[in-house]
Amino acid sequence: MERHFEQEFQDLQQRLLWMGSLSERAVHKAVHAVLEADEALAEAVLEEEPAINELQIEMDDRITRLLALQQPMAADLRLLIGASRINSDIERIGDQAVNIAQSATRILRHPQVKPYVDLPRMSGLAENMVRDSLNALVKRDVDLANSVMRQDDEVDRLRDQMFRELLTYMMENSAVVFPAFELVLVAKNLERIGDHATNIAEDVIYIVVGRDVRHPALDRR
Amino acid sequence: MERHFEQEFQDLQQRLLWMGSLSERAVHKAVHAVLEADEALAEAVLEEEPAINELQIEMDDRITRLLALQQPMAADLRLLIGASRINSDIERIGDQAVNIAQSATRILRHPQVKPYVDLPRMSGLAENMVRDSLNALVKRDVDLANSVMRQDDEVDRLRDQMFRELLTYMMENSAVVFPAFELVLVAKNLERIGDHATNIAEDVIYIVVGRDVRHPALDRR
Repeated sequence: MERHFEQEFQDLQQRLLWMGSLSERAVHKAVHAVLEADEALAEAVLEEEPAINELQIEMDDRITRLLALQQPMAADLRLLIGASRINSDIERIGDQAVNIAQSATRILRHPQVKPYVDLPRMSGLAENMVRDSLNALVKRDVDLANSVMRQDDEVDRLRDQMFRELLTYMMENSAVVFPAFELVLVAKNLERIGDHATNIAEDVIYIVVGRDVRHPALDRR
Repeated sequence: MERHFEQEFQDLQQRLLWMGSLSERAVHKAVHAVLEADEALAEAVLEEEPAINELQIEMDDRITRLLALQQPMAADLRLLIGASRINSDIERIGDQAVNIAQSATRILRHPQVKPYVDLPRMSGLAENMVRDSLNALVKRDVDLANSVMRQDDEVDRLRDQMFRELLTYMMENSAVVFPAFELVLVAKNLERIGDHATNIAEDVIYIVVGRDVRHPALDRR
């Protein structure tokens, strides 16, 4: 890798990590707005998210500039293509945090449906996946990226468990249908955050080993 | 644009259109599996979707090769970056069709919750957005791309209407909670298809005028 390109890419990577930590923090705050019935936390997420969007545009501009000026080949080209996809996934994690924050403000208008047991577990896991996927990028760590993909199964399992439990509450007591429905949406958002972290992990593998692992069922390799 | 690149890109665009039409058809079939209580349609979607994944990988390989070999600048570079993003959105539309098909098989185990009025409208609109966004790509038509983005508001409005109605059914009759919940998930999937078509429309504008319109609220231009 050329020295200048290496430096530019390190810089780019630092910004991606910063953006990732903003998104992860937004998810954490949004879920804690629900858990602690804290509307101010939800509002903080809505205020802070535009900074993530701003970073996304900046990153894409930089990536496009690097593509045009450096004309990278092979591994460097994969780095930039991967970084561009990761950029988009991080921004969408921020979008999901906003959705959760908006649900939080509606949930807080109702009495608590049930003790929150699966929600903090699911959220902790999804946040961890985001963190691990970005650590895997920094360390070019394929094993860590693979572990992110495995964690996604557990996120999906927790989502199914939350769905089942919430549906049971809805059937037993029609008064909780509204807030229980909002919790369903929150679980959907956390599921998508896990999906985005999985996308990032797939891109890390693409960057490191140059292999596309997005559709294992195709079995073409 | 160089002649060889022009030819390669025309070819790439044709494949994207083909892939788009497969995704759109998958959405249509999946929703009609619900509307017509036709499980065979749902199964067809599950069988046909891997072809879309296969195309996505093929397209990404071609785009990466063109980036490496042609070393395109400015407008050509935008074309390839835009095509790569569109490729990913089309594939995800296929994923949403699969989700709808899976919901369909579960919905069919229950009596129909309500007459389907909003569902075919919402689906027709989402399919139309997918078609228009790809037509906008072929014609480099910014006005058509803008109209896709406007249609997304109507999709979101229909989703809210479906949510309200389904929640009312759930509150009135706990026996319909399960199938009504699946219809909620279908509405969520259609909403996301609208979002993907909107992404494609934004990429068309990026390709044609070189302007990033993803976060209008940032107001930086």
